[in-house]
Amino acid sequence: MINFFRKKRKIVIDTSVFINPDIRNFFGKNPEEAIEEFIKIAKKAKTLEFYMPTTVFKELMYFLDEEKIPRDFYFLMRIKSPDKHRSVCPVIFFYELVEEIRQRVNKGLRVAESAVRSVTQKNTEEVIKDLRKKYREALREGIIDSKEDVDLIFLSMELQATLVTGDQGLIKWADKLGIEWIVPEKFKDFLLSAIQ
Amino acid sequence: MINFFRKKRKIVIDTSVFINPDIRNFFGKNPEEAIEEFIKIAKKAKTLEFYMPTTVFKELMYFLDEEKIPRDFYFLMRIKSPDKHRSVCPVIFFYELVEEIRQRVNKGLRVAESAVRSVTQKNTEEVIKDLRKKYREALREGIIDSKEDVDLIFLSMELQATLVTGDQGLIKWADKLGIEWIVPEKFKDFLLSAIQ
Repeated sequence: MINFFRKKRKIVIDTSVFINPDIRNFFGKNPEEAIEEFIKIAKKAKTLEFYMPTTVFKELMYFLDEEKIPRDFYFLMRIKSPDKHRSVCPVIFFYELVEEIRQRVNKGLRVAESAVRSVTQKNTEEVIKDLRKKYREALREGIIDSKEDVDLIFLSMELQATLVTGDQGLIKWADKLGIEWIVPEKFKDFLLSAIQ
Repeated sequence: MINFFRKKRKIVIDTSVFINPDIRNFFGKNPEEAIEEFIKIAKKAKTLEFYMPTTVFKELMYFLDEEKIPRDFYFLMRIKSPDKHRSVCPVIFFYELVEEIRQRVNKGLRVAESAVRSVTQKNTEEVIKDLRKKYREALREGIIDSKEDVDLIFLSMELQATLVTGDQGLIKWADKLGIEWIVPEKFKDFLLSAIQ
């Protein structure tokens, strides 16, 4: 028997659970199948509550045919942004982000300089292609760099929820705030364990 | 007669007040003279309390001959970092920073690409020099990008102090947190008004 007075365990879900093939494959061959399978299991997990920030939900819709999403999805997946105007965050988190960005920005300049120096030996378009890749690695990977990232972190913080994402950088930053997280590859097992 | 029970008005001071020639000249021809003149006036301003974050103080010492600093300086200028482990900041501030950085990072890539494309027409070393300048403008100016910046903002927030800096970018970000600030060019007049 379910105790309705017990507070449910909250889960904040990133798009990667349904989109990133390495994680999604635990649920299905494509995003639609993955969502269907997720819903089938999640419906039975009465002690869990699922959340997705608005920006992340919109990102998900970008990958999916909305008509193929089972209707239950909208009941099961609660769509909610963090209360960003009232929530607060330890100032130290800010220091760490600024420090990380500073290092990344310096690295980005080094990447750009080395691209410029390589033009004499290589085809310009190849250099540009390589520059874009390396610049992205230097400045984007492993850092919080989008509204979606910030939403996932602060919604998890606000709800005291467990964060499920395939983005290691996001886990690293969520962890600094004491946010609970689970290995995304184990998310299906996690759900199945909640049913037993 | 001074009311000793009244809370003093707190002022957080950036190095630019003594280093940046446009502001410093109100106090003196060089940093040492500027500090001496500042102390002379500030000593009489009994209703004010002056603070400098540790990182900013160290930055100041980098520009100055320590032996030339009047002894009163260390009594008058309170050196203190913000309590960054206990202080909190509205989450919205974080969103704005991440958004601004995202735009800057994209701009940095465009600057780098255009540098690569210009190599065929220009001397490589010239291109690099120009790249550094433009990249810095794109990614550094008008943004919080150092520990010193973050310290000035959060110390002002913590102390509910007035921030004095020549850095317009810093004022912009401090203003988002409701931090009081004054035009640095008017700082001398501000001090003189406090004495009257």
